[in-house]
Amino acid sequence: MTTSFNPPNRILLGPGPGNVEPRVLQAMLKPILGYLDPVYLQCLDQIQKLLRSVFETENRVTFSVSGTGGAGMEACLANLIEPGEEVLVCVNGFFGQRAAEISERWGAKVIRVDSEWGRPVDMQRVRDSFRRSSARIVVMVHAETSTGMRQPIEQLKHLRDVRDAILVVDSVTSLGALPVGIDRNEIDASYSCSQKGIGAPPGLSPVTFSERALEKIRARKEHPRSWYFDVLLIDKYWSSERTYHHTSPALMNYALREALEIILEEGLENRWARHERNSKAFVAGVEAMGLEMLVAPEHRLWTLNAVRIPPGVDDARVRSRLLHEYNIEIGAGFGSLKGKIWRVGLMGCGSTENNVLLLLAAMRRILESEGFRCPA
Amino acid sequence: MTTSFNPPNRILLGPGPGNVEPRVLQAMLKPILGYLDPVYLQCLDQIQKLLRSVFETENRVTFSVSGTGGAGMEACLANLIEPGEEVLVCVNGFFGQRAAEISERWGAKVIRVDSEWGRPVDMQRVRDSFRRSSARIVVMVHAETSTGMRQPIEQLKHLRDVRDAILVVDSVTSLGALPVGIDRNEIDASYSCSQKGIGAPPGLSPVTFSERALEKIRARKEHPRSWYFDVLLIDKYWSSERTYHHTSPALMNYALREALEIILEEGLENRWARHERNSKAFVAGVEAMGLEMLVAPEHRLWTLNAVRIPPGVDDARVRSRLLHEYNIEIGAGFGSLKGKIWRVGLMGCGSTENNVLLLLAAMRRILESEGFRCPA
Repeated sequence: MTTSFNPPNRILLGPGPGNVEPRVLQAMLKPILGYLDPVYLQCLDQIQKLLRSVFETENRVTFSVSGTGGAGMEACLANLIEPGEEVLVCVNGFFGQRAAEISERWGAKVIRVDSEWGRPVDMQRVRDSFRRSSARIVVMVHAETSTGMRQPIEQLKHLRDVRDAILVVDSVTSLGALPVGIDRNEIDASYSCSQKGIGAPPGLSPVTFSERALEKIRARKEHPRSWYFDVLLIDKYWSSERTYHHTSPALMNYALREALEIILEEGLENRWARHERNSKAFVAGVEAMGLEMLVAPEHRLWTLNAVRIPPGVDDARVRSRLLHEYNIEIGAGFGSLKGKIWRVGLMGCGSTENNVLLLLAAMRRILESEGFRCPA
Repeated sequence: MTTSFNPPNRILLGPGPGNVEPRVLQAMLKPILGYLDPVYLQCLDQIQKLLRSVFETENRVTFSVSGTGGAGMEACLANLIEPGEEVLVCVNGFFGQRAAEISERWGAKVIRVDSEWGRPVDMQRVRDSFRRSSARIVVMVHAETSTGMRQPIEQLKHLRDVRDAILVVDSVTSLGALPVGIDRNEIDASYSCSQKGIGAPPGLSPVTFSERALEKIRARKEHPRSWYFDVLLIDKYWSSERTYHHTSPALMNYALREALEIILEEGLENRWARHERNSKAFVAGVEAMGLEMLVAPEHRLWTLNAVRIPPGVDDARVRSRLLHEYNIEIGAGFGSLKGKIWRVGLMGCGSTENNVLLLLAAMRRILESEGFRCPA
């Protein structure tokens, strides 16, 4: 009757989840508490404070949604979008496309600014589309997990020269590993995840909302259909009212709290620099092997590194050999990049020099045994 | 800079979360895997099979929603309800009321069958309302966490003598501790949670959908607004297609898998009997102390035991003393029962003779020192 489950010890260098530090796992063994226990509420207060530091914001409404990154995306869009309104969505990858789809599901008339996958969206085109539209919401993916592209988000705020706007940024693959700068960049809402730059297990989605975003939500004619993702109700639990909404996932929040502590102990700048250094080392190794990166150097993420699969090399076979012979997971391409790139994640505690060296060595051995000629 | 978080070792005898067996916690320390790792997919297959046993169903579409119990409620209602349709909701407690509210948010014209909190809803009245309505969906709470009442759900299927109907049952506080009997009772959709009868940490919501329910969902004119809770999309990941939807919360699912294994090792009937025995022992002790239960004996849950607070006794003070002097959490009343009942959870590994004895002894000591006279 009883089945067993004994997963192998993988080195997770795909799009996430990444490996989790033992200290974070140990935090999940701390005694579980009720969702209104005064000690548990202290944990939530600490999480809010820590998340504000990592998001680089003073937004009061900053917490973890009790679901994965996609839950955070839905929480932001479902609350901000009123049915029938125009929403401008920048699309240059799978997750920009998903933001457009979810916006449509929530009743938006989506105005897409499309760009080639792997290249940033041109801000002048965004500005032109914004000017021609009546959109009050602009959605942009900071770190496109499907391509490894980093979108410059510093210019976004200048859209407000045209018209007031709610700026929504997907920071799923950047938060905790690259500067997001919510307040500095005047972003109104952002959603991330627990299992990439943050270094906790998957299951939570950190979000933050500016006062301007909350004003738009409070001014809705009807509340959003979703009750689980109703930000004003969730906030009543995280804020001093402590009104019960749903049973908070205690152990996941213990893990998130610990992971955030580790981030601030390392220091945000140090952590960003580590991710940059290891990504650049990996790219140097990949290029020395005769392979090419998908994204131009100035627009590369430090978390998710997209390597072009050389012609004649069998995508699935290489990934399968990495997994089964070396216990290393890397990611496949998505959508139009399926079979064309490998997605190598160097995030959180997985962004180490050793992981870079090991993966490069394993890739070289497999590629050579598959008949690909690496330069000496 | 660094803050610490060292929660005390509580005995959790409130409405949930309950305490979690060490074996379930240890399962969360197993190596984390990617969401498409073939070994991880085996874990999900095992969960589906185990959940079917616990739900007592052969429904193919049986899985854990990546959110807490409220997420499961929303997933069921958001997918089944088409805007504008009549939905019959039985309301005799906080969670029936919540089902009515969420149904309304998703566009239903809700027809309520109200009953006094703590008493089951009369099936003849349900039948009469159903006959007068055009509702094709009926929602009923099996185990009302706010009152400790167990609703007989065996008669629900006879509504189909009147007209075909989709029967939705909230099993949040019954699954894994009381028989739910999805197939035997011809229930079409049910949602539960991980942290009560199942004995895992909070964060997941087991759900199950009959073929009849899926037909209704597939026949929708428009897909439900929610993307995160779109059951047909989630099913594409859990079924053989394995299409990426969201990053599965791996460690939570490890915990759920282990907790479900423990349930089947104990045996469903043995587990139900244990919950019944310990609940009855607690009730006997409570009544011997001169206190009364809210719910009539034949309608009591074995998981959530609602004790009337005797006149003159300070609700909050007693709960606070239990928490701070004995490290025992019990729950307060909700809504119209606030200040009138204590909610004592004896669920999962928390349903033990020792917990019953300890809680009764602690309650007696506190009540007597607060001036309440217990019979000798």
